[in-house]
Amino acid sequence: MAKIKAGVLGATGAVGQRFIEGLKEHPWFELSSIAASERSAGKKYSIAAKWRLESELPKDIGEMTVVNVDPDEVEADVVFSALPAEEAIKVEADFAAAGFAVASNTSSYRMVEDVPLLIPECNKEHLEIIKVQRENHGWDGFLTTNPNCTTIMFALSLKPLVKFGIEKVILSSMQAISGAGYDGIPSMAIMDNVIPFISGEEEKVEREAQKILGTYEGGRIVPADFEVSASCHRVPVMDGHTEAIWITLRDDPTPEEVRQAFLDFDPQLSDLPTEPERAIIVRDEPDRPQPRLDRQAGRGMSISVGRIRSGIRYICMGHNTVRGAAGASILNAELFRKVGLL
Amino acid sequence: MAKIKAGVLGATGAVGQRFIEGLKEHPWFELSSIAASERSAGKKYSIAAKWRLESELPKDIGEMTVVNVDPDEVEADVVFSALPAEEAIKVEADFAAAGFAVASNTSSYRMVEDVPLLIPECNKEHLEIIKVQRENHGWDGFLTTNPNCTTIMFALSLKPLVKFGIEKVILSSMQAISGAGYDGIPSMAIMDNVIPFISGEEEKVEREAQKILGTYEGGRIVPADFEVSASCHRVPVMDGHTEAIWITLRDDPTPEEVRQAFLDFDPQLSDLPTEPERAIIVRDEPDRPQPRLDRQAGRGMSISVGRIRSGIRYICMGHNTVRGAAGASILNAELFRKVGLL
Amino acid sequence: MAKIKAGVLGATGAVGQRFIEGLKEHPWFELSSIAASERSAGKKYSIAAKWRLESELPKDIGEMTVVNVDPDEVEADVVFSALPAEEAIKVEADFAAAGFAVASNTSSYRMVEDVPLLIPECNKEHLEIIKVQRENHGWDGFLTTNPNCTTIMFALSLKPLVKFGIEKVILSSMQAISGAGYDGIPSMAIMDNVIPFISGEEEKVEREAQKILGTYEGGRIVPADFEVSASCHRVPVMDGHTEAIWITLRDDPTPEEVRQAFLDFDPQLSDLPTEPERAIIVRDEPDRPQPRLDRQAGRGMSISVGRIRSGIRYICMGHNTVRGAAGASILNAELFRKVGLL
Amino acid sequence: MAKIKAGVLGATGAVGQRFIEGLKEHPWFELSSIAASERSAGKKYSIAAKWRLESELPKDIGEMTVVNVDPDEVEADVVFSALPAEEAIKVEADFAAAGFAVASNTSSYRMVEDVPLLIPECNKEHLEIIKVQRENHGWDGFLTTNPNCTTIMFALSLKPLVKFGIEKVILSSMQAISGAGYDGIPSMAIMDNVIPFISGEEEKVEREAQKILGTYEGGRIVPADFEVSASCHRVPVMDGHTEAIWITLRDDPTPEEVRQAFLDFDPQLSDLPTEPERAIIVRDEPDRPQPRLDRQAGRGMSISVGRIRSGIRYICMGHNTVRGAAGASILNAELFRKVGLL
Repeated sequence: MAKIKAGVLGATGAVGQRFIEGLKEHPWFELSSIAASERSAGKKYSIAAKWRLESELPKDIGEMTVVNVDPDEVEADVVFSALPAEEAIKVEADFAAAGFAVASNTSSYRMVEDVPLLIPECNKEHLEIIKVQRENHGWDGFLTTNPNCTTIMFALSLKPLVKFGIEKVILSSMQAISGAGYDGIPSMAIMDNVIPFISGEEEKVEREAQKILGTYEGGRIVPADFEVSASCHRVPVMDGHTEAIWITLRDDPTPEEVRQAFLDFDPQLSDLPTEPERAIIVRDEPDRPQPRLDRQAGRGMSISVGRIRSGIRYICMGHNTVRGAAGASILNAELFRKVGLL
Repeated sequence: MAKIKAGVLGATGAVGQRFIEGLKEHPWFELSSIAASERSAGKKYSIAAKWRLESELPKDIGEMTVVNVDPDEVEADVVFSALPAEEAIKVEADFAAAGFAVASNTSSYRMVEDVPLLIPECNKEHLEIIKVQRENHGWDGFLTTNPNCTTIMFALSLKPLVKFGIEKVILSSMQAISGAGYDGIPSMAIMDNVIPFISGEEEKVEREAQKILGTYEGGRIVPADFEVSASCHRVPVMDGHTEAIWITLRDDPTPEEVRQAFLDFDPQLSDLPTEPERAIIVRDEPDRPQPRLDRQAGRGMSISVGRIRSGIRYICMGHNTVRGAAGASILNAELFRKVGLL
Repeated sequence: MAKIKAGVLGATGAVGQRFIEGLKEHPWFELSSIAASERSAGKKYSIAAKWRLESELPKDIGEMTVVNVDPDEVEADVVFSALPAEEAIKVEADFAAAGFAVASNTSSYRMVEDVPLLIPECNKEHLEIIKVQRENHGWDGFLTTNPNCTTIMFALSLKPLVKFGIEKVILSSMQAISGAGYDGIPSMAIMDNVIPFISGEEEKVEREAQKILGTYEGGRIVPADFEVSASCHRVPVMDGHTEAIWITLRDDPTPEEVRQAFLDFDPQLSDLPTEPERAIIVRDEPDRPQPRLDRQAGRGMSISVGRIRSGIRYICMGHNTVRGAAGASILNAELFRKVGLL
Repeated sequence: MAKIKAGVLGATGAVGQRFIEGLKEHPWFELSSIAASERSAGKKYSIAAKWRLESELPKDIGEMTVVNVDPDEVEADVVFSALPAEEAIKVEADFAAAGFAVASNTSSYRMVEDVPLLIPECNKEHLEIIKVQRENHGWDGFLTTNPNCTTIMFALSLKPLVKFGIEKVILSSMQAISGAGYDGIPSMAIMDNVIPFISGEEEKVEREAQKILGTYEGGRIVPADFEVSASCHRVPVMDGHTEAIWITLRDDPTPEEVRQAFLDFDPQLSDLPTEPERAIIVRDEPDRPQPRLDRQAGRGMSISVGRIRSGIRYICMGHNTVRGAAGASILNAELFRKVGLL
């Protein structure tokens, strides 16, 4: 099988680099186009971007010439977008109109009615709405998004609990600095400190999970009916968002029943390449999950849960720039191919 | 006025050092006796303890000889206890029996019926129970405790909200490493990490505040009737416990009404030396309080609150080894003198 | 005595805030004028600057209106400059010409022949060159500088060793993040990391100490004749530069003789207000000085030395934004007054 | 080819865990025996050791029963020792006497005359002394050691410079916390701090490199003749020792000639499995190597050098628990097999 051509929009930043890392040895996709702002266009990627991941940048990718974020300059079947939210509004629509499959990590379109807010393990049936989306806009291509990095961890953990009747979620996050981008948080701001505020984050976290766990009915996504109340905090951790969760469940299951539901969870994705062996890993040690020890689980694509106590309370942790960003979009695109959209 | 003689039990550890720091220039107390384990007894304090605070150890205190933790060896009117919980059970009772006023930071006696669990700004009337305590045990002295360092911050913040009718509290903590003692947490455990578990902490946090905010009636302390659900986490911060709080209030006040209640709070302690100018500081910036910036407020004795949002949700932060430990006990002893117990 | 009016140029940044902190309760100076870039001018200081120090910003200073960095707008006898190096070249000369005493923390004029590079404990006699400076430029005012924050620590430690004959210095620094300014170092760059490079730093460190320890002869400063070889590194420490030093001394003293020279050092400054009780503190513990424990010594104005071994090797540590920046300039200005220049 | 049976002595600690990680999928060795102290013996390894690496502990290894550190209980051809130094003196000799090949990471035997202090890329010919060692002691087995983790980085970097005539080395280290073992450094000791002292480290660093770069002549290892002067410091970094080096070379090469010598270095090991593609990686960026970005190079077995300046000065960095400990011993054992000792 020939590989599918993949482009990255906004390729020089922190998430853009994670996209390139995720695509560099991908079995289905080949990196065909690297697009970034005018400042970078025309330069070799190794010059335009200061590579900051621990894995090496492959030489041949470093030699690729960066192009403008323009459908006429990008040669690809699918594009992964790490564009800033304001810029994404116009650009991502342009790419969808021009026939590209767009897998976006940006927040702009997440809450738009005909755009799936996709976690393959949670709501792959929401892809049905692509038909509606194409009709609405007359697009040849299409557009999907993945959730906010904090949402994605707990929303995935909620999926096996839907059967108990979710009524309310309270969430207190301890988020990694990489979520703010490479230059986002000065070291003097966060060393020996907690910053109990992340601009816009609580709003996103409080509205996205209901759409993700909603049902596709008659051409629209009907959000699930539960409330989320969040308090979001930044802590001195490089990667991995840790979340303390209280959940009110209609059926009032025991912690052991909740644990069993996590263990039994089988999203049936039929072996997508980026899919981890287990979407949800249950840690039974008293002090796990921990971001430094567990963020690499499933090559960064598993979430880990633990400390399931009466309440129901539990801890949920996942890698924010892999499962919570670039890996999420790539998994979405793998699903496109599996269902015939690519 | 002659100064009151003060001893420190368990003087070599992290909290013991904070006791000595708090007493070294105290206007009412003079450090008269330093007691520690057999290993230290007989040595100069500067030899027995490796001083680890940023403030200098006064030379004359370094020259004092450490004695055994024994009422016969300690010369003092009041003793401050930073003993390990197991050891404290017998020893603190021995000191109370021998006529000492005991201000303990240890957990052993906190939930015992005739022992006040004291925060002067919250429940100074609980000191009435000392009469009962003395009768029960035939003690010449007496014994009080201060709460767990995580409890103390949010219990103090609850005091001005009692009038709204407290029904339930959910608390997610981000606790400093100093709370575990100098050798408590290996650097390899916490660097670039969160540990979502602190042994025994949630249990303490879930039962102490009700006693603190209870009423003294007919010779006993009747606990307040509300539920606390806690999730306690360690983060890479030196000092300062940050707590995200959700509180259900019967009267459903607005965030602005809650803020005003914090601002209006006046505990009427009549100028105890360790009392801060404001027990509760309201920060109106969107991203405060922060432990590194706010832990020194009121020389470590103020708590700071902020981000008061609908829910009611807010952030509460205080210095865990000052307001949450040594400073708390010293403030309690100042109250002893004010009410004539010393 | 009426207080001397003091202005701060570049008052909103990290060093500017340290200037304001150092002046707010100064016995000789009163903060009369706050100047910053056009963006800030016309605003209240509390609006123009996000205050980031642990000490509180005094309310009345927060209410002061920021003016432009212009001799016509600044009302003061002495100005402290924390301007960027490029901007300082013209502006500091303008202020000196307009009759101000200028105490600059900026690098622009440090190596200029007729400008003293001042550490009062080392070379107060270099102030003699002010006469020459005024003649050269026709200035009513005058201009002095203090050294780079890394230079200042080891240059001060060299002063008592001059008598042994300094031939060569090798210096390896472990520098705090505050040296790069509040936004200077992203947290993702330095967490769990060392950055073995600081732009321009080694060049400054290798040339400044010779001028500082030079002699004033016949209207010029003749630099001392020794070589400095530096390797400068950034480490995850908030404040306090630690320096490992190897020094070749002509007279080949023993480590004990070097230690004694440090202990005997008495700079005879006659009680300047910012002067620490001891300019050089000798720590005899095997593992000191340490930045977190020793940076506040002498309210940040002492340097601490330790581990004096054969070689001669030793460790030198000081607070980089106090002794190494704002405090250095303020001490210089105190010297101006002592010698009659103010 | 059948795999060689490998045991680990002292298998529960930080280096012991790295040995198990390095052996778990090794192409030549199979982990046949896990030995630890009496406290652990008889337990399953997953119970005896709290696994603290980011990689998962393989299930089947977790099920292995820990045995005592006793030649009669260990079934293996080669044993890797991470024993405490005092214990190793007797035990390692016992194993060598009993016929085992012993690859030790412990310091006990490093400076013993008939024991090779081995870095395969530097001095594989020193293995000749095994014959002498066996004769001296009448051993069936034999014993080798690898250097201290700080020594190993710079000693390897010196190898290509031997041709220029090494006269003196000055070394200032910034060492990772993992070098002290899991419980070695309390978080309160190192957060926001530098500890400018590591017990015994400078002594090791100052004597080992001369033996490593010595020549094997007539049945003995003649140490190279140069002086090393070290200052060793602990910084808040998880893994990766960074070293600032000044080297005096007889032939006075230019920095470019030194760089070329690093680039040309080819140790000719004929593809040992743990050998990295490049033993020494030259980084030409102005701010590399950095521990967080470069410690994984060559799966932790490469060292990285950079900032080669006149002096000659350069920075050298490597992974202290892989190249500097477990990986070093495993590479040594691979060499045993290549030369027929296994």
